[in-house]
Amino acid sequence: MDTRVTNKKEQVIVAEELLAHLKGHQGLTRRTIAAFPEDKLFNYSIGGMRTFAEMIQELLGIAAPGIKEIATGKPAELQENFDHQNKKQNLLNAWDKASAEIEEYWPQIKPERFSETIKSFGQYEGKVWENIFYFIDNEIHHRGQGYVYLRSLGVEPPAFWER
Amino acid sequence: MDTRVTNKKEQVIVAEELLAHLKGHQGLTRRTIAAFPEDKLFNYSIGGMRTFAEMIQELLGIAAPGIKEIATGKPAELQENFDHQNKKQNLLNAWDKASAEIEEYWPQIKPERFSETIKSFGQYEGKVWENIFYFIDNEIHHRGQGYVYLRSLGVEPPAFWER
Repeated sequence: MDTRVTNKKEQVIVAEELLAHLKGHQGLTRRTIAAFPEDKLFNYSIGGMRTFAEMIQELLGIAAPGIKEIATGKPAELQENFDHQNKKQNLLNAWDKASAEIEEYWPQIKPERFSETIKSFGQYEGKVWENIFYFIDNEIHHRGQGYVYLRSLGVEPPAFWER
Repeated sequence: MDTRVTNKKEQVIVAEELLAHLKGHQGLTRRTIAAFPEDKLFNYSIGGMRTFAEMIQELLGIAAPGIKEIATGKPAELQENFDHQNKKQNLLNAWDKASAEIEEYWPQIKPERFSETIKSFGQYEGKVWENIFYFIDNEIHHRGQGYVYLRSLGVEPPAFWER
């Protein structure tokens, strides 16, 4: 008896559903980057916070390398900067590359891996699922901040519920 | 053989873990409300957005009634306003009451319920887990916006990673 199939209905969420959820968020964040006037992406902020481009670089440094680390077991390094040359298209390209990497490595994460305890980037200890949820939560958190930047610039952000 | 116990390790996340995750977020949102100067909670906003108190009322109208509906099967109504009398303490009390309700009703959600399709509040169709994730994501999204309000007021928000 394949208990995994039998019990699928008793799981809160299965791995493919979590990936779909994550991809939905990545798509929304991409549309949020795209909604920014190019210069504001790199020079606008509120209350001494980072620009949205800087937040996006943080996100790029976390989810894809973190999921690759979870999938392969090879240590990842936290790297939050790259030479985007103040071009929106370069950020979008990096975003697409990260999304493709997540999709490539995700299927290598074995079901039992999610409840294992790891130290992400050599420093963030927790269960694999907790790490992945953190990646997603952190993206939602900063994207929500990007929405305020957009609103204060008179730009309508993408609909939050559309994925 | 109790397959549920056997397969616990192969689940992305079990129900108690999702509750713990949700409670961690609720605690952080509570600290975010508490960080606001009382008047700013009710009269401050950026870019024509809602005040943080209005966003909190939206959240109060969603998670606790939504989880009660999921647990009991009894239809919930979307109710996003209550008479807070512009008092921070009234918002905090309502928040605590909602958190207690979530904790009360959560154990009534049967494991197989998470993959059932429902229409939350009579209008949001999706699987139970998708609805619950939406409640959490929406809270993170608006709380992130509250962080920008706080920063623009010169107030340090609570640490995002502390739950």
